Amino acid sequence: MNKRIVLHIFGKIISTVSLLLLLPIFVAVYYGEYGNNKSLLSFAVVAIGSFILGMIISKIFPAKNRTMFAKEGFFVVTLAWLAVSVIGALPFVISGYIPNFIDAFFETVSGFTTTGASILTDVESLSKSMLFWRSFTHFIGGMGVIVFVMAVIPSVSDRSIHILRAEMPGPTVDKIVPRAKDTAKILYIIYIGLTLLQIALLYFGKVFGVGKMGLYDSVVHSFGTAGTGGFGIKADSLAGYTPYDQWVVGIFMVLFGVNFNVFFLLIIKRTLSAFKSSELWVYLSVIAVSTGLITFNILDMYKTGAKTVRDAFFQVSSIISTTGFSTTDFDLWPTFSKTILLLLMIIGACGGSTAGGIKVSRVILIFKIIKRKLKTLVHPRMVKGITVDKKAVDEETVSSAATYTIIYFLLVVLIVFILGFEKNFDIESNLSATLACFNNIGPGLAKVGPTSSYFGYSYLSKIVLSFAMLLGRLEIFPLLLFFSPSSWRKVS
Amino acid sequence: MNKRIVLHIFGKIISTVSLLLLLPIFVAVYYGEYGNNKSLLSFAVVAIGSFILGMIISKIFPAKNRTMFAKEGFFVVTLAWLAVSVIGALPFVISGYIPNFIDAFFETVSGFTTTGASILTDVESLSKSMLFWRSFTHFIGGMGVIVFVMAVIPSVSDRSIHILRAEMPGPTVDKIVPRAKDTAKILYIIYIGLTLLQIALLYFGKVFGVGKMGLYDSVVHSFGTAGTGGFGIKADSLAGYTPYDQWVVGIFMVLFGVNFNVFFLLIIKRTLSAFKSSELWVYLSVIAVSTGLITFNILDMYKTGAKTVRDAFFQVSSIISTTGFSTTDFDLWPTFSKTILLLLMIIGACGGSTAGGIKVSRVILIFKIIKRKLKTLVHPRMVKGITVDKKAVDEETVSSAATYTIIYFLLVVLIVFILGFEKNFDIESNLSATLACFNNIGPGLAKVGPTSSYFGYSYLSKIVLSFAMLLGRLEIFPLLLFFSPSSWRKVS
Repeated sequence: MNKRIVLHIFGKIISTVSLLLLLPIFVAVYYGEYGNNKSLLSFAVVAIGSFILGMIISKIFPAKNRTMFAKEGFFVVTLAWLAVSVIGALPFVISGYIPNFIDAFFETVSGFTTTGASILTDVESLSKSMLFWRSFTHFIGGMGVIVFVMAVIPSVSDRSIHILRAEMPGPTVDKIVPRAKDTAKILYIIYIGLTLLQIALLYFGKVFGVGKMGLYDSVVHSFGTAGTGGFGIKADSLAGYTPYDQWVVGIFMVLFGVNFNVFFLLIIKRTLSAFKSSELWVYLSVIAVSTGLITFNILDMYKTGAKTVRDAFFQVSSIISTTGFSTTDFDLWPTFSKTILLLLMIIGACGGSTAGGIKVSRVILIFKIIKRKLKTLVHPRMVKGITVDKKAVDEETVSSAATYTIIYFLLVVLIVFILGFEKNFDIESNLSATLACFNNIGPGLAKVGPTSSYFGYSYLSKIVLSFAMLLGRLEIFPLLLFFSPSSWRKVS
Repeated sequence: MNKRIVLHIFGKIISTVSLLLLLPIFVAVYYGEYGNNKSLLSFAVVAIGSFILGMIISKIFPAKNRTMFAKEGFFVVTLAWLAVSVIGALPFVISGYIPNFIDAFFETVSGFTTTGASILTDVESLSKSMLFWRSFTHFIGGMGVIVFVMAVIPSVSDRSIHILRAEMPGPTVDKIVPRAKDTAKILYIIYIGLTLLQIALLYFGKVFGVGKMGLYDSVVHSFGTAGTGGFGIKADSLAGYTPYDQWVVGIFMVLFGVNFNVFFLLIIKRTLSAFKSSELWVYLSVIAVSTGLITFNILDMYKTGAKTVRDAFFQVSSIISTTGFSTTDFDLWPTFSKTILLLLMIIGACGGSTAGGIKVSRVILIFKIIKRKLKTLVHPRMVKGITVDKKAVDEETVSSAATYTIIYFLLVVLIVFILGFEKNFDIESNLSATLACFNNIGPGLAKVGPTSSYFGYSYLSKIVLSFAMLLGRLEIFPLLLFFSPSSWRKVS
């Protein structure tokens, strides 16, 4: 392996990411969070420290040989995510808002992986700049820490598509345009554009008297939506905001779960191609059907039909897009509705979006694999390729999707098993905690439901769940490779 | 498709199976269950009726063309299992012991599929012959309804290996000896031999004063063990019997979960080959480790160490062998122990045994697939075959195991989803009910725990769970093919 290039890029990433801390520093200055309040100080110390550290590392390991392959890509991504999570956790620890490092690490991993699972029992006690940073990690993590770095620093390698592949969700990451760097830029433009649109809609909602979100609230909630993260700033998430606010956030959660290729095709006016994606239609149909079923199921719990539909739609779009905002305590819903939510947790949104889960495109592939298997059972000699949207899918992608799904279920089983050591958590809580973290959703059911937090779990469980979030966000393989002993042998 | 041969064999199966009803008839006569008690009458009516029906069907469709392929095999097996379950349910309905047909169907499917899930709320109120029949269905279903038929009637086709393949559990069914019929006979001899040994051990336990089972109790419990079924005759399953009885049953549950090839190799004195099977060692290790972990976890709940180990071992061997007997209410155990049991439910015992679950051999294959996937991620051009016990496994078997596992998890998710319609059952109950039925275990956790029954489920859920049991026992594909529309089109 080319260790030098890995460490060189690693250093660059750390120093670039430290610049991101300038935003919460600005917020801390604006709200006067210095002096007795240690927010500003903590951000400044960590920003300066990590900038210098990153510069030193990239100087010690100059990139003479720029060869990069898949393995280097996986290693860069894993190292960068671990380092960024540690750096991002430090301001919480230093400022004393989350004194324990493991708790802060959990919270930051949850932020960057856009999970939104929290160990905070009183979120409203944090300073404005801390809450801003917490939501900003969602925004950075959504599109990818490294995709961001690639968009802003000069390309270190012609083969950086390997990094893009390792970090972007979904089974098929194509270069939209020939150069990886340009792809990263286009993705970020779409991402920022949509986020700005949401901020505007929320903010003008208040201006016109239908919304309740000022600029600060609009920004942090749009960050949480864009990254499909779900960290809120109120104890009851979005329950206290107006129906207008809830509809805007609900619809944008659906939008950020759409494959970004669709938006790209729309921008370059290839509207027809954009709407030909079967993944898009399956995704929208699942949302429509689930909302319908849940509305029907919970109708007698609510006073008005409008609120029923709104709550059903909001929770469905929040869970399938793996965001995790809530407008009601869905843990009180009947078993049927809760089962639908668990199902949506597993499916997740579209590939090539900021969302987690198995992804709709993989689910479509899986069903085609099963259909083919049934056919070959009857006609053993008939071997046919699989097509999606009338394009042939190569067998490599097919078998990858199958293996991915199997590893996915095995890891869910393994994590539920480890959580079993907890004395005070039942199986429903553990299962939903695992799915909620692995799929980067956030709140689960029962003891980790939308009105509770992950605070009660032991440190072992918190570390395991942190890794579950990373596994989910990076789609398993980079992390698994990084920690598999054979990757570290000299020969390979 | 060659429909004539399918219906011809189908007829033969029904008339042969009707002869099995002679045994409960004998028991009913012995215990004087006639007159006011309608047991004898019910068995006699059903036996005669189904014998005549079977004869008529096989006469109407003579087997002129004996060509059989995989598809015919799948169809024969599915049809036969559905018909046998209906026939087997009738004595319960006619005698009035289980007046509702759907309940009786559930109970009989549960018997033949060796699940052991029961809708009875008071098992001890049934007549001796009814309880005998209930346990006897386990014994028949364990080795396979059709394997039995093949062992006793003249072979209808040279290609009957297709039937054997469709009915025998596990990913790799080989002919032990060249002819399928002989393979069936050898398997049945091992099966009956082990069962007789268990009956003798239990019965002589009472003779020597260490056991409590008379001949009747020894026979029905051995039937339940041999088929890895789990229907008992007491409300508290095996809790009321002696430690000796519990150890014997516990050990035989482990034995009946072993691949029968191992016993065959032992019989023909190829001891070394027998113990070279990695599946066997993984299976035994999982049992040992699980017993150890649970013992450690529940130690402070019990008075003596001996009882702790015995209860831990018994429950582990009962669940991994998918039998379902119990000596204690394991639903009261801590979450950790219950999580281990859920895990064992999914794994199941060895391929080529009478047990359910994904099977240890498939789990081994799955792990090798994952290992290979990780290697090819790093070295994309290195494609290597997979070996088990130093023999190469063909890619067909590899991809089958992968597809099987995916369909397995999808069906679990689907069934849990349908059970979600239940008003009075929580997610833990529904999940464990699905796993317990699909893997042919029997009792689950919470509301379907070892001290409860499936009586409270709606008829829709009972039908769905009945199909779950059949899907599990026939390893998904035959049933899925039978009900897939494309199988019924003229062209294929």
